[in-house]
Amino acid sequence: MRVRIGLSYDGTSFSGWAKQPGLRTVQGVLESTVAQVLRLPCPIDVTCAGRTDAGVHARGQVVHADVPDSFVSSRGEILSTDVALSRSLGRALPDDIVVRTVSVPAPGFDARFSAIWRRYVYRLWDDPASIDPLTRSYIAVTTHKLDVDAMSEAAATLLGLHDFAAFCKPREGATTVRTLLDLTPVRMPSGCIEVTVRADAFCHSMVRSLTGGLVAVGQGRKDASWLAEMLTLRHRANDITVMPAHGLTLEEVAYPPDAEFAERAEAARNRRDCACCDHAPTHNALAESDTPAGQEDPL
Amino acid sequence: MRVRIGLSYDGTSFSGWAKQPGLRTVQGVLESTVAQVLRLPCPIDVTCAGRTDAGVHARGQVVHADVPDSFVSSRGEILSTDVALSRSLGRALPDDIVVRTVSVPAPGFDARFSAIWRRYVYRLWDDPASIDPLTRSYIAVTTHKLDVDAMSEAAATLLGLHDFAAFCKPREGATTVRTLLDLTPVRMPSGCIEVTVRADAFCHSMVRSLTGGLVAVGQGRKDASWLAEMLTLRHRANDITVMPAHGLTLEEVAYPPDAEFAERAEAARNRRDCACCDHAPTHNALAESDTPAGQEDPL
Repeated sequence: MRVRIGLSYDGTSFSGWAKQPGLRTVQGVLESTVAQVLRLPCPIDVTCAGRTDAGVHARGQVVHADVPDSFVSSRGEILSTDVALSRSLGRALPDDIVVRTVSVPAPGFDARFSAIWRRYVYRLWDDPASIDPLTRSYIAVTTHKLDVDAMSEAAATLLGLHDFAAFCKPREGATTVRTLLDLTPVRMPSGCIEVTVRADAFCHSMVRSLTGGLVAVGQGRKDASWLAEMLTLRHRANDITVMPAHGLTLEEVAYPPDAEFAERAEAARNRRDCACCDHAPTHNALAESDTPAGQEDPL
Repeated sequence: MRVRIGLSYDGTSFSGWAKQPGLRTVQGVLESTVAQVLRLPCPIDVTCAGRTDAGVHARGQVVHADVPDSFVSSRGEILSTDVALSRSLGRALPDDIVVRTVSVPAPGFDARFSAIWRRYVYRLWDDPASIDPLTRSYIAVTTHKLDVDAMSEAAATLLGLHDFAAFCKPREGATTVRTLLDLTPVRMPSGCIEVTVRADAFCHSMVRSLTGGLVAVGQGRKDASWLAEMLTLRHRANDITVMPAHGLTLEEVAYPPDAEFAERAEAARNRRDCACCDHAPTHNALAESDTPAGQEDPL
């Protein structure tokens, strides 16, 4: 039986999502805790929608795991495994991971490949004299005031299907072509600037680099045309700052209607084609790589 | 020279404001850091407006300290001490204490006795299924939904000058008569319930007990008349929960115009009189205690 679990976590004390020997990771803690709750002899594999990097937080992470159908409680009660996990997983996890939902999804659901988009928010604070120590674990501070209007104007030039190589940490054989659906900086009433970034999928460090590019524009060090030029690069830019991990939070992952889970997962596993953008030769080369589309690199 | 310092801190890793041997406290860290920055041989006394208890946070704490008028920097530059503290104190403090302002106040200023009111906010979250791990260090979770309208109605009965003995941890010879200026629970767009509590001064555990009383009403376990009855008690109530420290934040301390600092401090040091409320005999007895009014017990 496949279960779908909705998760939030404070990334501060984790070495990211992906399990690594000897390090405390969200995947490592979750896999061993699911096994402990279900009294299984060894950790169970879980797959997530957005592989967050060390220090990155999540409010809307989604994962799936394949588990035995039923579970016998200590009182001899036979429970459906999703019910057993709903009752006990939250209590068994440390307090920096919170289980929001446990459910049995429609057939074909894959937390990673069925997703249609991921929404991240990068939080910035541009008044060092009034740093709030209570929010310092999830808001990054910039040394100069930011012009949010200039950032918004520049952000608009990056929307759509492009090769985001300039903003990505390269990975052998992986495409850097993505569809950027939303890139919106907004100053909130508190003074915090929230940069919403939404795309079909992201490559490694992409959200933090996009935000770094916008910060350069907001501080007046660069302009919108410099940022737009980045889309012509076929390699990582050396003048874009990758913003600190702790300002970034995965807020939401969207899925299609139940009947389309399998179809979407199949499509996302297929190679990405890029016939509709301006750089056909390069993109065709990328499209020939064996990287599945919908690939979500660590952020 | 007296300096006034505006401070914020995350109370999570402090054993409260007041210095105690062997414990990490805000006062202890601040006094030794001021001395270190000014290269003084021993810690310097600092006095705060609101003595926060272990785990309580502050965004608007105000303190004063008496320091030498001038300071010679490592480059031989002679600086006014407030300028030296403005430049260096923030950098020298750990990142859970933030200096917001350093200034030289008008004569007669006393961070504690010149204050005219303190404003605290207690933050509650009443949906355990959607706890946000990023805000768990400063929002307290309740197990049942809260009726904010019922809480508001009950809160209104407590406003004004009363003996808040029912809500206070007793202290030998100290009055528990206070003027409650504001007690307002509001559900924010995020779902968080912010209880704003403002008074001339508070006694020990008063804000957390007032919030505990409102939570009992909000959960339907008690009603407004039960809460109003508390004002007739001359001792601590045994059926009011003192809410956890981490939900509480000192947000603001207000002072009169500069010319009135000394006058206000003098008045606050005098014994509190209570001729205007309904319980003259008890309150007269309290007024005869030697506790200065304006006394701010740990919260």
